[in-house]
Amino acid sequence: MRTMKAAVFIRPGKIALEDRPIPTAGPGEALMRITTTTICGTDIHILKGEYPVAPGRIIGHEPVGVIADLGPGVTGYDIGQRVVVGAITPCGQCHPCLDGHQSQCGGKAAGGWRFGNTIDGSQAEYMLVPNAMANLEAIPEGLSDEQVLMCPDIMSTGFGGAESGGIKIGDMVVIFAQGPIGLCATAGAKLKGASLIIAVDGVSSRLEVAKRLGADVTIDYTKTDPVAEIMRLTEGRGVDVAIEALGTQQTFESCLRVLKPGGTLSSLGVYSGKLTMPLEAFAAGLGDHKIVTTLCPGGKERMRRLLNVVASGRVDLKPMVTHRFKLADIEQAYDFFGNQRDGVLKVAITP
Amino acid sequence: MRTMKAAVFIRPGKIALEDRPIPTAGPGEALMRITTTTICGTDIHILKGEYPVAPGRIIGHEPVGVIADLGPGVTGYDIGQRVVVGAITPCGQCHPCLDGHQSQCGGKAAGGWRFGNTIDGSQAEYMLVPNAMANLEAIPEGLSDEQVLMCPDIMSTGFGGAESGGIKIGDMVVIFAQGPIGLCATAGAKLKGASLIIAVDGVSSRLEVAKRLGADVTIDYTKTDPVAEIMRLTEGRGVDVAIEALGTQQTFESCLRVLKPGGTLSSLGVYSGKLTMPLEAFAAGLGDHKIVTTLCPGGKERMRRLLNVVASGRVDLKPMVTHRFKLADIEQAYDFFGNQRDGVLKVAITP
Amino acid sequence: MRTMKAAVFIRPGKIALEDRPIPTAGPGEALMRITTTTICGTDIHILKGEYPVAPGRIIGHEPVGVIADLGPGVTGYDIGQRVVVGAITPCGQCHPCLDGHQSQCGGKAAGGWRFGNTIDGSQAEYMLVPNAMANLEAIPEGLSDEQVLMCPDIMSTGFGGAESGGIKIGDMVVIFAQGPIGLCATAGAKLKGASLIIAVDGVSSRLEVAKRLGADVTIDYTKTDPVAEIMRLTEGRGVDVAIEALGTQQTFESCLRVLKPGGTLSSLGVYSGKLTMPLEAFAAGLGDHKIVTTLCPGGKERMRRLLNVVASGRVDLKPMVTHRFKLADIEQAYDFFGNQRDGVLKVAITP
Amino acid sequence: MRTMKAAVFIRPGKIALEDRPIPTAGPGEALMRITTTTICGTDIHILKGEYPVAPGRIIGHEPVGVIADLGPGVTGYDIGQRVVVGAITPCGQCHPCLDGHQSQCGGKAAGGWRFGNTIDGSQAEYMLVPNAMANLEAIPEGLSDEQVLMCPDIMSTGFGGAESGGIKIGDMVVIFAQGPIGLCATAGAKLKGASLIIAVDGVSSRLEVAKRLGADVTIDYTKTDPVAEIMRLTEGRGVDVAIEALGTQQTFESCLRVLKPGGTLSSLGVYSGKLTMPLEAFAAGLGDHKIVTTLCPGGKERMRRLLNVVASGRVDLKPMVTHRFKLADIEQAYDFFGNQRDGVLKVAITP
Repeated sequence: MRTMKAAVFIRPGKIALEDRPIPTAGPGEALMRITTTTICGTDIHILKGEYPVAPGRIIGHEPVGVIADLGPGVTGYDIGQRVVVGAITPCGQCHPCLDGHQSQCGGKAAGGWRFGNTIDGSQAEYMLVPNAMANLEAIPEGLSDEQVLMCPDIMSTGFGGAESGGIKIGDMVVIFAQGPIGLCATAGAKLKGASLIIAVDGVSSRLEVAKRLGADVTIDYTKTDPVAEIMRLTEGRGVDVAIEALGTQQTFESCLRVLKPGGTLSSLGVYSGKLTMPLEAFAAGLGDHKIVTTLCPGGKERMRRLLNVVASGRVDLKPMVTHRFKLADIEQAYDFFGNQRDGVLKVAITP
Repeated sequence: MRTMKAAVFIRPGKIALEDRPIPTAGPGEALMRITTTTICGTDIHILKGEYPVAPGRIIGHEPVGVIADLGPGVTGYDIGQRVVVGAITPCGQCHPCLDGHQSQCGGKAAGGWRFGNTIDGSQAEYMLVPNAMANLEAIPEGLSDEQVLMCPDIMSTGFGGAESGGIKIGDMVVIFAQGPIGLCATAGAKLKGASLIIAVDGVSSRLEVAKRLGADVTIDYTKTDPVAEIMRLTEGRGVDVAIEALGTQQTFESCLRVLKPGGTLSSLGVYSGKLTMPLEAFAAGLGDHKIVTTLCPGGKERMRRLLNVVASGRVDLKPMVTHRFKLADIEQAYDFFGNQRDGVLKVAITP
Repeated sequence: MRTMKAAVFIRPGKIALEDRPIPTAGPGEALMRITTTTICGTDIHILKGEYPVAPGRIIGHEPVGVIADLGPGVTGYDIGQRVVVGAITPCGQCHPCLDGHQSQCGGKAAGGWRFGNTIDGSQAEYMLVPNAMANLEAIPEGLSDEQVLMCPDIMSTGFGGAESGGIKIGDMVVIFAQGPIGLCATAGAKLKGASLIIAVDGVSSRLEVAKRLGADVTIDYTKTDPVAEIMRLTEGRGVDVAIEALGTQQTFESCLRVLKPGGTLSSLGVYSGKLTMPLEAFAAGLGDHKIVTTLCPGGKERMRRLLNVVASGRVDLKPMVTHRFKLADIEQAYDFFGNQRDGVLKVAITP
Repeated sequence: MRTMKAAVFIRPGKIALEDRPIPTAGPGEALMRITTTTICGTDIHILKGEYPVAPGRIIGHEPVGVIADLGPGVTGYDIGQRVVVGAITPCGQCHPCLDGHQSQCGGKAAGGWRFGNTIDGSQAEYMLVPNAMANLEAIPEGLSDEQVLMCPDIMSTGFGGAESGGIKIGDMVVIFAQGPIGLCATAGAKLKGASLIIAVDGVSSRLEVAKRLGADVTIDYTKTDPVAEIMRLTEGRGVDVAIEALGTQQTFESCLRVLKPGGTLSSLGVYSGKLTMPLEAFAAGLGDHKIVTTLCPGGKERMRRLLNVVASGRVDLKPMVTHRFKLADIEQAYDFFGNQRDGVLKVAITP
């Protein structure tokens, strides 16, 4: 039996590289040889035991690679083709998928998120892709792995925040937190036609990247009260759309505090602990506010669109890949990324 | 100077009938002679001091009547015409109004709500209508005052909850609380094509009215756990849209607990105290949930549509008027309505 | 080899009952035993040679029946289960399906329409269902075949016309032509909350059915000029939504002539010959008009919703089944239906 | 009586500079001193007698200037303030305006278009602004007249074409015709996140500007068949959105021919003569196509948004002002612009 290296969740606090058999593609599946993958903030939650995953699970959900094999019934693809697969892999055929809720595939909350969660993931030499015909998307010629590495999750999620917020031409938008997802939300806000984009974070290097990706104004919350400053910048009006990209009471609440009546809070964060609605900012429910949440849109049509955005040069997210590691050194990469050393944004992992 | 009788907010705990001068219509205004009005749950909040209103304010925001006079610049109407005016009176000309946020007129939260709040209201013999050309709507021939008495607020708000929820043909919908607004939301859910409408309340007479207005199933929460029962009725799937029509932690939370991933919580209640998000039901922000709030849509176009719904016979809300009082007896009416005596739903007040 | 009876398109002018082998379910497919089916206006176009279909094709696209067999990989269903399948059978996994254009499956115009078009159809004892997991929907207990016979096409298409038109509560709507699809559009307009529904046709029995399904006003165009009458009924305003349910220059043009500026023409008809835009009614392109076309939405989620509407009793389309035939007599049924004898609306065909 | 110079429509073929009394602001109106205006393609239609306007009408509908006086009841503005007013001046208070159809103000097709059509326009030293409170928008500090001169019409219309088309991130879009409106539609497509923007015209200098404004690919239809080339560029898929910016059978038809099933034709052109639907490209009505028309959105909220886009630097339309004339020379400017001499795109006219 041929084996491969894979990053496996052992127990809270421990992810280790192990040898695993290379899996075989069953009906409707594809076997993908991973050429580049990365680590997500969610993986750190898993590592810390904050998000429960079965011990023994290969983690990772951001795959770039090559089709190694196609299971029975999978047509329209060639072995050897370079492909991207989204972090979320909808089946396309269940009731929620057919109703437009592909991330909620199967009807369970976040049901479309399988890789590194309910099935083995991408931090390995090989990975099985379920519902392959709905999920494999060929990479346009001329694009490198690193250029498309943000497509499966970060870019899809961040753009999704801008899209779900319903940003219109001429909107004023704030994005709270400029980690990888917040940065992509900033880029998404620009792509959607916002005329004033305000990025908030406490790390100056991230605010610098935010500027390059579309922020008109940046606010370092360690130096300036963002709520007061945003109200000043919008002349007391508030923003049309506030994007939450962290998942804390503080940022959620700040979003509502700077939101105009009739505005939309587009939430991307994963919340833990307790989340309380600031009733005064929420106008006790009378402000025609909307709060929308978005789980990373997946499926091959989504990937096609994002790849086209990359290919067009509209957005260049390559600068987000700040560091590179071999799969063999993934434990070190976790330590590095998890502790946000050396201004890391995203790491590229290559088997 | 001619005077009139009017219900005036004196101080928390005290609303009294007083003599007031009949006002004069300024530019853009109309003077309306009230023929029928009613008391809203919000007025009870004002009475109790839970919603702050300036002492001396004439309260009430649900006017049916006759045009008594037209101020300079108001054209297209005749003195003596029977009209309805919405509880919310948008100017139509400010930035938020032109942007589609008419209830948030002027850009202040709930800024479109003026009657009995920031200007004198309808529990009087006469009332000034601001921005008359955007707000006066003629009553179609053949409709009685009581038939249209729900249009200014209750019907507009309740239907608004169904509309903002984005109810589609074949949706499963629950409405928590069957007071006047919840009942109208139930009627609205039917008008929007829901195929399963579940109404929840603890008062059996209200659940009876809910059935007449469109509920397929009613749940008396004093006897049955609504969350478990709704999950059973939807075969574990959850509802597409949950409408909150009370404004409590309990009902808000129950809405989220029965909502499918990807579903919409449409909130109509006015919250006080504290509101906490149940993170597990909210899927920690990963469930593609939407929470939308709706303040009673107003303006004459909205009134025209609601009047047409009444005229068409699609919905008959007359049974909601359960009791009648003279304006002279309004203090008694407040006591009666405020304490929900005798199965009261709405009272008709006639000067 | 076991054989079955099937209605086969031989050549323009000739559909004949033939013996055919009962097919075998391949991967992803299901074999359905048809218990009831019907004839569509489109089948008449095929019969007349107006819509091209390969000679030898079994026609029909409105199947009600029982699962006879499941091909490899089809899970979640039981043999013997009563099911409905839509006329349109999306795969759920191609780019257009994942992008929400399921009727345009594969990216070819009307690509989701396979039965009786590009693959064998339902006017037979057995039929193969492609992409079975995206298309088989169980019939709720207690519903008869005839109660659900309109779901696969007529009801889905007619309701689709009301949905695509974006009908809002209080809208004024006209539906031109009250054949089976127009009648379902009338029912759909009511389900969506229209307050004035005007049905136009030249056959009084159809106008009678229209009234039962929701029309407030009917216009017999052989006696009254519909354009003038609709403008009178709407007091010169025009309708918000005009639904075209025939596919002729005359009805298309009349829709535009009675449409308000900013209104929507929702087109369901299949046009042949020539279609010219009446530029004056179209305001030369300055009227903010929308023209939307809708091909019958399919897939099991759509069927689930329609079945729920039937089960809820909101709409009763059983009266539309006016005549019944045995599959053995289908040639006679074609003659009967094609020539609209005896006030026929839809015929039920049972093998 | 003080007089002013104004460009007056005399009769088909004749627009002349005349002396006219400076008008006085009535209730709700403002008097605007024009500092810069321009000529629109529509004005050329008026000149040629192709669009009927009353003889004696001062034409022009693209005003930039200064508030000279405020009529009774107009508050919130200062005399001397620099302002822009849209070509379309909604009242904000009629039923269509309150229903979101501001360009169709009053319910007549194109009813919101008043300047240089039903009331005197901007090609003069002074102009009255109706419904001033809904229409006057202050120019942000630091922006020149020429920078904002496209806001009243060209930019609002062109962007409107992209908005009505519902362009999503990653869409493929074509814009047929690259006159001033088509160029702005090209810029709008980029603002909305299209990943492939194809601009078609026959004038190479316009295609050059198109590239600067966002076109990824340009097609000179005098050299290349645009339909074949677009199908090649989209790999046979067709575009998601096709914008028509001319108003001819040829461009309308080409839009449909390159449109994917389920796609949207967003029409901006003003059609004359005859317009026929190419039924095969229209899939006989079965392709889930949408055709939407857009009349220049107006009102001060729209102007505020466009001014913010200009101020943000997202789009720079100043290069579109290719020539400058004094109001005294406007007859010459008409000749120049009407005959498209010297690569003219837009002319700035200053009194």
